[in-house]
Amino acid sequence: MNPLENIRIVLVEPQSSGNIGSICRVMMNMGMTDLAVINPHERHDWDEARRLACHADTVLDARKTFQTLEEAIADCTVVAGTSARTGLHRDHAGLPREIAPIVLDSAAHHKVALVFGREDSGLTKEELAVCTHIINIPSSEIYRSLNLSHAVMICCYEIFLLAGDPSYRPPEERSPETSVEMRERVYARWEEMMIETEFCQPQKLEHMMLGLRRIFSRGKLTDNDARILLGLAQQSLWVCDQWKKEKERGDEPI
Amino acid sequence: MNPLENIRIVLVEPQSSGNIGSICRVMMNMGMTDLAVINPHERHDWDEARRLACHADTVLDARKTFQTLEEAIADCTVVAGTSARTGLHRDHAGLPREIAPIVLDSAAHHKVALVFGREDSGLTKEELAVCTHIINIPSSEIYRSLNLSHAVMICCYEIFLLAGDPSYRPPEERSPETSVEMRERVYARWEEMMIETEFCQPQKLEHMMLGLRRIFSRGKLTDNDARILLGLAQQSLWVCDQWKKEKERGDEPI
Repeated sequence: MNPLENIRIVLVEPQSSGNIGSICRVMMNMGMTDLAVINPHERHDWDEARRLACHADTVLDARKTFQTLEEAIADCTVVAGTSARTGLHRDHAGLPREIAPIVLDSAAHHKVALVFGREDSGLTKEELAVCTHIINIPSSEIYRSLNLSHAVMICCYEIFLLAGDPSYRPPEERSPETSVEMRERVYARWEEMMIETEFCQPQKLEHMMLGLRRIFSRGKLTDNDARILLGLAQQSLWVCDQWKKEKERGDEPI
Repeated sequence: MNPLENIRIVLVEPQSSGNIGSICRVMMNMGMTDLAVINPHERHDWDEARRLACHADTVLDARKTFQTLEEAIADCTVVAGTSARTGLHRDHAGLPREIAPIVLDSAAHHKVALVFGREDSGLTKEELAVCTHIINIPSSEIYRSLNLSHAVMICCYEIFLLAGDPSYRPPEERSPETSVEMRERVYARWEEMMIETEFCQPQKLEHMMLGLRRIFSRGKLTDNDARILLGLAQQSLWVCDQWKKEKERGDEPI
């Protein structure tokens, strides 16, 4: 399978109909066809979108609509979100040219996603948290903010170029990479474990979880890895449970 | 001087007002400000252009308008035009990433131009002939043709990235590079020389001139080089003139 066909472009609450159409054209120019739109508002002018899609109206027609980002990326392994901010995500943020091989390597065997936020405010902190990687598009200090369709173009262009580079070799798959859905199950269990083991104060929980996401996004996470991490948390939770029961028994009047 | 400020974006007869505005934003995102528009039609909706320029309305307001491409690039050294066709221009055509260092090296000391054609038909053969280099933007076979503003983005992005690359060093200037105006004077004289020396048949002249342009565009051409080439043609033309006079004298009845 052509890896470019495994790349899903995900638009979170896009406001401009023209941008959606332009992005369809960009996608087809760069050999991609899988478009997901999260929670589009009802007033979209789909004729305007079609006009700007030009000959890429097939991409527009085949788009899938989702209520939440989580649904749109549930079957994906690598999920790369774009953000002008780095901050907390410094460890797994990179330039489009740096993230392109990570996306393309994974797309050789799995569904992957490139996620783009709203025209005016980008992706929320919560949306960035479910991304395994963050893309920072370089731009001039005098005017940082790119039009949405141009941001999509730069990311897709770098991946398209790499895919066509004769020196690029996709990796052989050893153990299947895990999906976002499985990743999220792992995180949910580890969060529970942090609470039950009293590992950190509740107000620090969110920060700790972000740290954990960073650690587990640094390299590939296979299904096997995910099962180990899940099992470990479950075992720890079992111990917590035993401990509570013992305490209760100890507290009982003799 | 910042070399990005020496880069002129030249739009030849753009049809969409929105595209002109989008391109202003792209330019400012990529640190460029010098916009030239050739022969814009009278029905342009400048409010629409301003809407899409967003915060780059200063670039839009500072645009210069020209009647011909030659006027817009007269003071430039490197002139890189975009084309989907290679054909005759194979020897000085390249990917955006290959042409970027040629443009940026020259922009360290001179004005240079990136030239983009009409949305529907691109640049004419004559317009491509005055370009010193041709940029071929890679795209998918299923949909080759990029929106104009996206084509500008890819070219500007590659140059912007290179300009910010800490390993990139602009060349020191040894002898000043010659301008398009001087180049064109050279070509005009050489064309005259080809005719007068009866070097080639008139129907092959255009083809020969294209060949000559390719040869002289392969590397830099300094002012000194241009003066040598000009002098050489002028001297050859002087010989032609002497020869004719001699012939006329010989033909006179004794």
